Amino acid sequence: MSLIQELRSARCFLCSLDHDAEIVTSITNLAERLGVKVGAVAAIGALQRAEIGYYDQVAHEYRPIEIDRPVEIASLNGNLSIREGKPFLHAHATLADSEGNVRGGHLTSGTVFAAEVCLRELVGRPPVRRHDPTTDLFLWSETD
Amino acid sequence: MSLIQELRSARCFLCSLDHDAEIVTSITNLAERLGVKVGAVAAIGALQRAEIGYYDQVAHEYRPIEIDRPVEIASLNGNLSIREGKPFLHAHATLADSEGNVRGGHLTSGTVFAAEVCLRELVGRPPVRRHDPTTDLFLWSETD
Amino acid sequence: MSLIQELRSARCFLCSLDHDAEIVTSITNLAERLGVKVGAVAAIGALQRAEIGYYDQVAHEYRPIEIDRPVEIASLNGNLSIREGKPFLHAHATLADSEGNVRGGHLTSGTVFAAEVCLRELVGRPPVRRHDPTTDLFLWSETD
Repeated sequence: MSLIQELRSARCFLCSLDHDAEIVTSITNLAERLGVKVGAVAAIGALQRAEIGYYDQVAHEYRPIEIDRPVEIASLNGNLSIREGKPFLHAHATLADSEGNVRGGHLTSGTVFAAEVCLRELVGRPPVRRHDPTTDLFLWSETD
Repeated sequence: MSLIQELRSARCFLCSLDHDAEIVTSITNLAERLGVKVGAVAAIGALQRAEIGYYDQVAHEYRPIEIDRPVEIASLNGNLSIREGKPFLHAHATLADSEGNVRGGHLTSGTVFAAEVCLRELVGRPPVRRHDPTTDLFLWSETD
Repeated sequence: MSLIQELRSARCFLCSLDHDAEIVTSITNLAERLGVKVGAVAAIGALQRAEIGYYDQVAHEYRPIEIDRPVEIASLNGNLSIREGKPFLHAHATLADSEGNVRGGHLTSGTVFAAEVCLRELVGRPPVRRHDPTTDLFLWSETD
């Protein structure tokens, strides 16, 4: 059965990330600094370069896809929850090049050109990531 | 004139969908089970296969696009509202293959590998879908 | 340092935009009419045509990308904040053609076929856009 965690919306932050910062670390650090343990994240902006991942559903490993040129963040959506006791960002993104062509997947890293993040805090019993044997991913599971 | 329905945020749910489940049905069932009639939905994750639709704006019909391989859900955004008296999910998605290449459109169906859904309940007078003669789609219209 | 503006969720609107309307103007007008100064925006639907932009990170100018055919709005995400004293929409989108192929970037304009917008009002001290010398963009900065 699906895990369902009921939460409530609390604070909401609009943030402009630093030029040249690494985006995944920046959003995670932002959450830690603001005391946000669980949340929903959306962002738009542009990256100077990025790495995305495709999860091989048979081999059970991420394949890295390097994007070594400037791209627009056409979308970035994800969530913050607890993994190994700490706030953990899981985000997927679509990235558009100078022709508008889009590549996407799991966002591993990216160097910020400019990025506007909407971080919504959710409060209540936080979902916790644990190893899932079926997928070999760390998915939300019942706490205890 | 545009329909504008004012609502208020209520409960928010983070849900991990079952491996092998059909994603559109899963999210719809989740809403029914939780008593959510109106809401905003976002999800990330991966599908084992999917079908998306492109609405032909002249012929007024959906053209199916089969994606017969595993993909990342780079984005999934949509809403829940009432159609024919029941909660109805309308979601669009972008899906990325092993090279990071993205296809997208109206999400018709998909088999979950892993999926994390953020479902925000909205309360107030629910928008209701009715047939729209201009587009032949079921769009929100004034409730009498 | 990143700008961080703390806000609170207030009203939430589900809106169906008019067929044939220009999408960026429609959403901006909607916000003005509803008195929403700051917010988060998400939309799905379809456009009859669109123009997206790619920001050249070296030349510091937007390059226009015309999409002269009907497309699905696979995603549209963005925010409303204050620029030159008025509510200003900044939105990025991914747009899918009849084969499901996706192009994306900064959404400059688009003619609505059908569009469903979720507009969440955020209240508190609004972030204000000012010229940023590093990027030549109007980014959120501290309100004195």
